[in-house]
Amino acid sequence: MKEHQFIDWIRSQSRFDPVKVPVGPGDDCAVVSFSDDKLIVTTDQVLDGVHFILAEHGPTAAGRKAMARNLSDIAAMAAVPVAATATVALPRGICQEDVEAIYHGLRSVADQFDCPLVGGDVGAWDGALAISVTAFGRAGQGGTILRSGAAKGDAICVTGSLGGAWRGTRHLEFTPRIAEARTLAANYELHAMIDISDGLATDLGHLCESSGLGAEIESAAVPIHPEVANLDDPLAAAISDGEDYELVFTLSADQADKLIAAQPLSVNLTRIGTMCETPGIVLIDPTGEREPMKVTGWEHQT
Amino acid sequence: MKEHQFIDWIRSQSRFDPVKVPVGPGDDCAVVSFSDDKLIVTTDQVLDGVHFILAEHGPTAAGRKAMARNLSDIAAMAAVPVAATATVALPRGICQEDVEAIYHGLRSVADQFDCPLVGGDVGAWDGALAISVTAFGRAGQGGTILRSGAAKGDAICVTGSLGGAWRGTRHLEFTPRIAEARTLAANYELHAMIDISDGLATDLGHLCESSGLGAEIESAAVPIHPEVANLDDPLAAAISDGEDYELVFTLSADQADKLIAAQPLSVNLTRIGTMCETPGIVLIDPTGEREPMKVTGWEHQT
Repeated sequence: MKEHQFIDWIRSQSRFDPVKVPVGPGDDCAVVSFSDDKLIVTTDQVLDGVHFILAEHGPTAAGRKAMARNLSDIAAMAAVPVAATATVALPRGICQEDVEAIYHGLRSVADQFDCPLVGGDVGAWDGALAISVTAFGRAGQGGTILRSGAAKGDAICVTGSLGGAWRGTRHLEFTPRIAEARTLAANYELHAMIDISDGLATDLGHLCESSGLGAEIESAAVPIHPEVANLDDPLAAAISDGEDYELVFTLSADQADKLIAAQPLSVNLTRIGTMCETPGIVLIDPTGEREPMKVTGWEHQT
Repeated sequence: MKEHQFIDWIRSQSRFDPVKVPVGPGDDCAVVSFSDDKLIVTTDQVLDGVHFILAEHGPTAAGRKAMARNLSDIAAMAAVPVAATATVALPRGICQEDVEAIYHGLRSVADQFDCPLVGGDVGAWDGALAISVTAFGRAGQGGTILRSGAAKGDAICVTGSLGGAWRGTRHLEFTPRIAEARTLAANYELHAMIDISDGLATDLGHLCESSGLGAEIESAAVPIHPEVANLDDPLAAAISDGEDYELVFTLSADQADKLIAAQPLSVNLTRIGTMCETPGIVLIDPTGEREPMKVTGWEHQT
């Protein structure tokens, strides 16, 4: 069972009171009613040998990535971080310096976004290093942006450039797009948004599915990261590689025109396509040739 | 570095804005300002071979314990659960039935306390099963009860009876004392409270330290669990064994007299001693002999 199938199964098991839990599992974050407000909450783990390699990347990078992945989910809702917690399963015999380095890694990116690390649990075991973080936030100006809000005809835009993050160290060093998402949501009417953790094809696929729509993507418009520009098939890397932690979002064509002209962020914004009624994602090459967008060659290696 | 030392180290690293984070690491839960209210949050993990043995106890019990430990921390603040999240690191090759059983274990105790499981993350790795839960709550009637509020002369009371939880299956099957804590806090002026996860001596020690006081405990008053009554030293088991997940709390002697006379809970309430000025916990035997309360023989085995 793949993670996405598992989430579908979880959703089938859950009957939420929509007043208490406006958004349950299946978006970047859940939304829970609290007091007279909405609490936005996400949780994600990083595991040695899957998301990082402790012996190669070191404890600070592991802690940093654990926090950054969660804050990227907070960004994907255009939310504002409030606080975070972490649990750390430590390999028995790890030295104190490494434990402190994990903590400093967690703190380094949390501090950057004024997100206090308010609680945690550490325990030693015979297993490898596992770090689980829960981050919670509040809605930013412009409200909470879900995956499900895209409309037919919406422009599809992305931040930054895509591909190859896990080939180098970008998957460890990325900056969650919290500031960018807040600026976008405060100044433009975003309809739907998701962060690109599993690759453009997969994550845009989630956005399409949640919105009950499809997408048409101009292959020549997809922003290719310089690190993959010299590969045999840079476009495939940009579409299929994961761990970019950029944002893909939709808004009306009018709003997109203004946004692309204004380029209000320090990172580049690109319109890559249009939401359409037919399910699935179609890639359109410069000659007008159409083919389904496919995930190729990507495996979660780090 | 022991967990308690590590928490002290964490606290030394943290400078919280007391308006944003009224209670940081070091209590059963953190308290974070959210909207015009206070959000109560705790996180805790269970690890195969440390907190449960998957091959022996099964996946449902593992999931159940992960959730129950967190809800016990919510209980220790006399708080009301709002929602929870979970991450699960799955041993590669685990069958789907077992994954579903973990989920049902988590849900079984969460549902009991109307605590929706709103988000999560699952991932397979070469390691053993690790489950991390974060639980959120709000203050109950009577407010949030911290470890630090005990006063000199306070009566010290416990719920239920103590000892031997990890020798059998009580450490897997306990019911978090959420209902009990809410009833107590709503009807009596509790000053301080903690749940007994590491044993009475250790956890009452945390309460004393946080309150800047000591405790005198009448050894004959400590409620011994029937499962350890036939051991050579049942009192040592009641004092030192962990994983009881009962509550120890303090309130004025007057309030305690009323409480003990009323016995408002379905579980027994016992007054075991008195808060005093001199740091440390003294055990007083029926002849009046005094000795320091010591942790004996307890190791975290399950």
